[in-house]
Formats: sequence, C-alpha cells, structure tokens
Amino acid sequence: MPSFKLTLAYDGTNYVGWQRQASGTSVQGLIENALRELDGREVVLHGAGRTDAGVHALGQVASCTLERDIDAGVLVRALNARLPADVRVVAADAAAAGFHARFNATAKTYRYRIFNADVMSPFERQYAWHVYGPLNVEAMDAAARLLRGRHDFAAFQTASGPIRTTDRMVSSSVVRRAPPLVTFEISGDGFLRHMVRAIAGTLVEIGRGRWTIADMRDVLDSRDRTRAGPTAPAWGLFLVGVEYGDL
Amino acid sequence: MPSFKLTLAYDGTNYVGWQRQASGTSVQGLIENALRELDGREVVLHGAGRTDAGVHALGQVASCTLERDIDAGVLVRALNARLPADVRVVAADAAAAGFHARFNATAKTYRYRIFNADVMSPFERQYAWHVYGPLNVEAMDAAARLLRGRHDFAAFQTASGPIRTTDRMVSSSVVRRAPPLVTFEISGDGFLRHMVRAIAGTLVEIGRGRWTIADMRDVLDSRDRTRAGPTAPAWGLFLVGVEYGDL
Repeated sequence: MPSFKLTLAYDGTNYVGWQRQASGTSVQGLIENALRELDGREVVLHGAGRTDAGVHALGQVASCTLERDIDAGVLVRALNARLPADVRVVAADAAAAGFHARFNATAKTYRYRIFNADVMSPFERQYAWHVYGPLNVEAMDAAARLLRGRHDFAAFQTASGPIRTTDRMVSSSVVRRAPPLVTFEISGDGFLRHMVRAIAGTLVEIGRGRWTIADMRDVLDSRDRTRAGPTAPAWGLFLVGVEYGDL
Repeated sequence: MPSFKLTLAYDGTNYVGWQRQASGTSVQGLIENALRELDGREVVLHGAGRTDAGVHALGQVASCTLERDIDAGVLVRALNARLPADVRVVAADAAAAGFHARFNATAKTYRYRIFNADVMSPFERQYAWHVYGPLNVEAMDAAARLLRGRHDFAAFQTASGPIRTTDRMVSSSVVRRAPPLVTFEISGDGFLRHMVRAIAGTLVEIGRGRWTIADMRDVLDSRDRTRAGPTAPAWGLFLVGVEYGDL
C-alpha cells in the first residue's frame, strides 16, 4: 500500500474549488477520479489547502494511498494523461505510510496578485485583481509586516463552522511592486477561511489612502470581521507552496 | 473627421483571428461593432498585423476615422466598456488624416513562446507551445540570427493568394532561454503568412538536434515550403508591437 505526496498546479478558473462538492467540478474530485481509474478502487485524496472556487495553485500538495505498486514517474504521466490541461501533477514522491498533506504541513505560502494600471491586461484578467489609481505600496508593505508573529486573526476570517482557535503564526508577510503588478505574499502555519483575501482587501484600502497603517493594527486587535476591508476576489489568489518538517 | 491610432492587447484564444470572417467572432469585428455604437455609423478598422486564430497581441495597432469629435481618453474608456475582458484598448492617440496602421507601419515585432519542461504549466497552456526534452538553445539562437537581413522567405510562408514579393527585411532575430521558457523574438518590415510560426517550428527541429544550424540556411535558400519545419501552434505567438517612422 504505497503512499504518495503529489505536488499540483492548477488554474482554478473553471472549478468550484479544491474540495469535492454536491455539484460542480472540483480539483480534488477530478484527481480522485483519475486515481480510481489507475488503482481500480475508490481513492481519497487529502489536500494541504482547501482553495476556494477560482483560487489557483502553483504548489498545492495532496496525499493518497494506493493498492497498486506504481512508479512515481509513471504515476505523474498516467494522471496527467487523464486530467484536463488546467490541472497538472507537477511531481509525485513516495511518502511514509500515514503521511497526510494537511495534518503534516508545517507552513504554507500564499500570493495575492494585484494589477495596478488604468487598463487591465487581457492575460491577467483571471489571475490578478484589477485595482486602478495610485497605490501607496510602502504603506501596504508596512501594514503587511505588522501581521508577522502569532496573532488572533478572527477579524480576517469568514466563519464556516466551529474551529478550535483563530490564532495563527505568520512567519513572513510582505508587499512588493513590480509594475504593473503589486504582490502580497504571506507564509504561516495555517490560514483561516478567506484570511488572505480579507487581508489583501484591507491592504488595498491602506494603499488607496482610505485607511492608515495603524488601522491594520486596530482591525487585527478588534477580532471583528466587520472591521476589516472587503474580501479581495478569488482569482488573484495563488497557493504557492506547502512545507513539511522532517517526515 | 478625427483619425485615431489604437493600441490593442488581446488574448486570441476565443477568436477566429484579427480579421472579420464569414462566421465566428473576430477581434476586428468586435472593435468595429463598438466603434459603430460610439460613432453612430459603420466604421472600418485597419489592423497592422492580421493575426491568425488563437494568436495573441500585446501591442497590435489599428487605425480608424470617426465622424464624431471624441477625446482620446474617453474613447479608450468607452471602447473598453463595450469590449469583453480578453480584448483591451491600451491607448488611443490622435493620428494624422489618412494614417493607415498597416501601410504606414515600418516594423513589427513578434514573439514565439516555448514552454520547455516535462510538465506543462496550466497557466501557460494557451500562451506557449509545450516542447519537452532537451533543447539546444545556443544552436536555435545561431540559426535564428542567420535570418537577419533581407531574404526571400518563400520557404516559410503558407501561400494565401498572390503577393507581390516574398522578400522581407529582418532587423532582429534572437532566441533566449529563461527557464522553463525559450523565447524566439523577431523584428522586421513585414511578415508572410505563418512565417514566424514556420520559423519557430524549424528552430525547434534544430533545438532537438534533428537538424543542424546549416539546415536553416539551406531551407531559406531553397524557397521551398516543404523543406521547412512544421508550423508551430498559433497559441505560442504574440504580436508584441508595431513601429511607425515619422508620420
């Protein structure tokens, strides 16, 4: 019963998100279907991050256990042959028995892309949020850096059922400009639902000068979702990568 | 009767090409429809390059003459409000009476993008040709540079009705690697139908080691289309920009 760690890239535009749903096509469902064809039985695939509808991945990680003994390189090619071109298995690695992509993850990195120009690029329309008008990127970066460390991020979550704690450890949080793009990148041990997009929406309010850097601290301290900025659109968000400690 | 020079970017994936056709949606047709709405009469739009179905543009240029006096900035916004998100008017500039985007063009630049890795990126599937296996980029670049200067490019054209001459002047022709991309960029005073894609297909044969650098010279000298490599797919090709001398 070999276990595998799959590294995945996908364009989320055409999907209801990572997770299998009652209706619509999910990335998880597509890959589970392909695994079932290969393994001859139902296979459950665990993803490290449950990306929402329209959210993309450069380095999603998922785990599964198969009945059949299959070479990792063969598995990559066999899965890609069965998947549409907007979902790709980038790599497959043999994993220790019991490896779980979500529970064993020690850090994740997300990137939020903002296209800051008068006219949107037709090539970025599904991969970045179009924000026009001047953005004070220095203020956005200073506000992003305030989030580093362990905090209660309740102000930046969309509640979706009971969760144990809204404390999260953010190891890195930075905003950079590479015209016409402004990119927010954040790494941490875990993320609440819509957390990165709510932070991105708040950072844009600060970049526009409507809010100050100090407002970021006040929103965070308030633990009140109604105080944060609007949730930035899904199509600007990328799950960049997932890290694992010693396995 | 103000004349305008429009600079356009479009994702060619969903279109039958630049030029209006009996059936299917063309980029020219879309913009002409929007211009008709604004000007209250039929408007003819002349494009500098007649990009084929699936070919993209970063800096296509088109010319038109309107009845109404309209501010160039207003024209950009009014057109973009009437166009789908995969076709954008990047700029509009007042032009001299009689300015013709195709006849007055002095140079055009095209870029052909090759994605050279085992697994295709889902984000490049409509914007680059997936070529796996090693590519000798130095040989490709040397072969591309042989094309500089004035030559008869008959070996690299798809005949489409009578044309005056198949001589063209290439001012720049270069292949670069920026992993995982390999990019071929060519500038010249004009291009025959499918010329850039036929050259790209030939360069890949050379990169794979099936043909030598000297074969590029032989193909060019042969003036025989059956001697060149396969026509590379449309979706890797971008019209980057168009230049005009003193107007």
